[in-house]
Amino acid sequence: MYRIDLNCDLGESFGAYTLGADEEILKYVTSANIACGFHAGDPGVMHKTVSLALTHKVALGAHPGLPDLIGFGRREMAVSPREVFDMVVYQIGALAGFIQAEGGRMQHVKPHGALYNMAARQPQLAEAIAEAVYKVNPELILFGLAGSELVKAGAQAGLRTAQEVFADRTYQADGSLTPRSQPDALITDHEQAVAQVVRMVRSGQATARCGTEVALQADTVCIHGDGSAALAFARHIRETLAGTGIGVQPAGTFL
Amino acid sequence: MYRIDLNCDLGESFGAYTLGADEEILKYVTSANIACGFHAGDPGVMHKTVSLALTHKVALGAHPGLPDLIGFGRREMAVSPREVFDMVVYQIGALAGFIQAEGGRMQHVKPHGALYNMAARQPQLAEAIAEAVYKVNPELILFGLAGSELVKAGAQAGLRTAQEVFADRTYQADGSLTPRSQPDALITDHEQAVAQVVRMVRSGQATARCGTEVALQADTVCIHGDGSAALAFARHIRETLAGTGIGVQPAGTFL
Amino acid sequence: MYRIDLNCDLGESFGAYTLGADEEILKYVTSANIACGFHAGDPGVMHKTVSLALTHKVALGAHPGLPDLIGFGRREMAVSPREVFDMVVYQIGALAGFIQAEGGRMQHVKPHGALYNMAARQPQLAEAIAEAVYKVNPELILFGLAGSELVKAGAQAGLRTAQEVFADRTYQADGSLTPRSQPDALITDHEQAVAQVVRMVRSGQATARCGTEVALQADTVCIHGDGSAALAFARHIRETLAGTGIGVQPAGTFL
Amino acid sequence: MYRIDLNCDLGESFGAYTLGADEEILKYVTSANIACGFHAGDPGVMHKTVSLALTHKVALGAHPGLPDLIGFGRREMAVSPREVFDMVVYQIGALAGFIQAEGGRMQHVKPHGALYNMAARQPQLAEAIAEAVYKVNPELILFGLAGSELVKAGAQAGLRTAQEVFADRTYQADGSLTPRSQPDALITDHEQAVAQVVRMVRSGQATARCGTEVALQADTVCIHGDGSAALAFARHIRETLAGTGIGVQPAGTFL
Repeated sequence: MYRIDLNCDLGESFGAYTLGADEEILKYVTSANIACGFHAGDPGVMHKTVSLALTHKVALGAHPGLPDLIGFGRREMAVSPREVFDMVVYQIGALAGFIQAEGGRMQHVKPHGALYNMAARQPQLAEAIAEAVYKVNPELILFGLAGSELVKAGAQAGLRTAQEVFADRTYQADGSLTPRSQPDALITDHEQAVAQVVRMVRSGQATARCGTEVALQADTVCIHGDGSAALAFARHIRETLAGTGIGVQPAGTFL
Repeated sequence: MYRIDLNCDLGESFGAYTLGADEEILKYVTSANIACGFHAGDPGVMHKTVSLALTHKVALGAHPGLPDLIGFGRREMAVSPREVFDMVVYQIGALAGFIQAEGGRMQHVKPHGALYNMAARQPQLAEAIAEAVYKVNPELILFGLAGSELVKAGAQAGLRTAQEVFADRTYQADGSLTPRSQPDALITDHEQAVAQVVRMVRSGQATARCGTEVALQADTVCIHGDGSAALAFARHIRETLAGTGIGVQPAGTFL
Repeated sequence: MYRIDLNCDLGESFGAYTLGADEEILKYVTSANIACGFHAGDPGVMHKTVSLALTHKVALGAHPGLPDLIGFGRREMAVSPREVFDMVVYQIGALAGFIQAEGGRMQHVKPHGALYNMAARQPQLAEAIAEAVYKVNPELILFGLAGSELVKAGAQAGLRTAQEVFADRTYQADGSLTPRSQPDALITDHEQAVAQVVRMVRSGQATARCGTEVALQADTVCIHGDGSAALAFARHIRETLAGTGIGVQPAGTFL
Repeated sequence: MYRIDLNCDLGESFGAYTLGADEEILKYVTSANIACGFHAGDPGVMHKTVSLALTHKVALGAHPGLPDLIGFGRREMAVSPREVFDMVVYQIGALAGFIQAEGGRMQHVKPHGALYNMAARQPQLAEAIAEAVYKVNPELILFGLAGSELVKAGAQAGLRTAQEVFADRTYQADGSLTPRSQPDALITDHEQAVAQVVRMVRSGQATARCGTEVALQADTVCIHGDGSAALAFARHIRETLAGTGIGVQPAGTFL
């Protein structure tokens, strides 16, 4: 039987500021990446989000980011592997506190934004993240871009890894995402987006924008949770996948 | 046999800023209260401090504070019990990440500065802290001012508690510390300071500044780690206590 | 001729977070209190807000707050007069940079949230704020709660002051606002709210909730800018005041 | 007559943390670059530093940095020109508040750390900084690495610029500093270090490490203020320059 996880970033509100439709999106996804206070989130938001995800029986993951609240963790920073190791340990630990307090269990770790992107390309940062996750808890699953340095480093460190794919992005011949600066970077047709995922799950392949076939393992799909269009797509992909007989389940149940 | 713990705040450096003589003071104390990034400390400092304390076989504790780096957590803030619960869970969790990564075990939690002082007086904040500690890990020991609301709340919540006393401060008839604004608040004579501790350990009593006897349980003594005078006193109290046959050991070994 | 200023807090967005309907509310108010990055706002938001307010010909003011982004500056902190002086100078200066860059002129300073409330009651903090404003620019107008210590301190320091009143709050016999914890703290009827302002402007009096008359000078009215109900009321008060012949103008034009 | 300015970073303490020997170094330098709270410094430190520099009759400058307190502004970040413009305006403004409050005048702006280095190489960031400085106050002098994009952008924007040179660093044939990773990057001999500056001032030339001559205009020399060795060198260069008849004066007096 084929299985896939749907993951979404959650708990990105901060203090008086609200971001995202967390309660809505939790109906459609199976894994929640919860912000840990560096790029978004604060202790109160983390507590509420952990509690909310548990209520919806959605698997819990830490979503560590760069220490850049103004930039929402989206601006790359020249951080050393040691600094990355430490900021990841800190954030996993902080979230683990709330999960422990609420009687839950952490399933995974997915780096956020610029940290995710840097770790996809830079082996040293990828290794620092994998080592941090492993040392805090070797049972955790590391989520990373399919085919990236992060996934390689996770496997190397002895972790289970989940290869993340995107429904709404096109791929290039080398398996990388088409940069957003390119006109055909996005897949706006919902049927086509779901079809890409279904094919990746069943055959481990996607058609790159140039027409060639690319091998791509799909363990989890990145779902956006902000805005009504995102919610509509989340519902659509969830229902369509269920209709195809692909099991939509938390990564931890099949990896 | 009588036993006492000596605890000290550690890991208060931040980024390019160094504070405290952590390596020196670790020779004399038995429990380390490690700052968790809210009032002092950062992920890199926390990692180094955990590692250093483990090397010195000093017991590890979280030292959560108010989110006030500029004020070093010393300015009282009108925080709600819920906010306090969440900030304490977050900080304990963050430190636990490093302890887990280094293969250690957390012994205790001691709130810092204004949070410590508010929790000594305000039952609701004390309960929020005790509940946070218990929910993250009921095996942790809660350190609080001897006779304070915090110690009461800890016991009520089902936690082991360590009553903290001060060698270099005088007490009032009700068991509270003489405010620093008073001329006789400090005990500057080293022999007298140690003698006060020895008496509290052996008889559970101290002589208040007005001359009356006060019942005071002494489980752990607060030791300062900054400056050569503090280091000299730390060494002095450690050696003197050893000479009197009082066992100087981490609180977790006898509570 | 009677005149009144309508002021509103603006520029409270931060990074990826949006708060308030700044463009809408600028149509109805005459003075903008712009957050300066301590409790809300960031350099990018401040720049945009200054530019937007200038476009709408709304007078510009600094809205300094406590350094508490998570708490939105609403939690009182035990800050010293010297700390308050410095945080106010810093924030006025920062906003002045953008106003200078955009070719505008700063009209006023209104402290935010907990800082506003503490300064209304505590003379030493009020004096620190008044002195900070005066030393940076003695031409600035200090906005404070009508009858408060802040207004007194401003006058004492040699500043022009604007007494702020509330349309939607009831007053007590001593001229203070009825605490929100009381059932009759809020005036929910729009006509009654505007009528209270009109009467304060024309006669310098309001009817306290116990029925007695209170002397209250009304120079500026606090208008809320968040939510459709707030926008509707802003429009209502602006239009109604205009209809009564009371000039709705920036405080700097008549104080 | 030849003239040179000696500048030093000051006001880098933060909250409970002390950094640098500000009072000592102020005896030897003629321009102070004062941290503005993003990479170091806080409102209280800024106030004290402005006051201290005025007492020593040292010219005042803003030292804006990246928003990275943990990294002391030394880690490059992918910031946009617009973000840089805004963070520079904010920080200049904040410092200007204290200078205004103390009755002084701002002479210059020198970016800090990673912002200085990025602006030396990247024309768009350099232009954003130059424009920010100009728009806040066109009388300000922009300090930048001799021959850098920042100095070019400053001149282009219509600002006076001060070309900064280093006494204790060797230069490469293209006028750039030898990277610290190279063995001969540092000049450790005090006489040789001062001689390099004297020659740059008198002839506008330096001998690159490969032996060729490089044209280098020297308006101001970067002096370090932390540690006894730095203080000793500061005193040495100040006294030696005075002995050679080169006027040691704030940049604003001769540019």
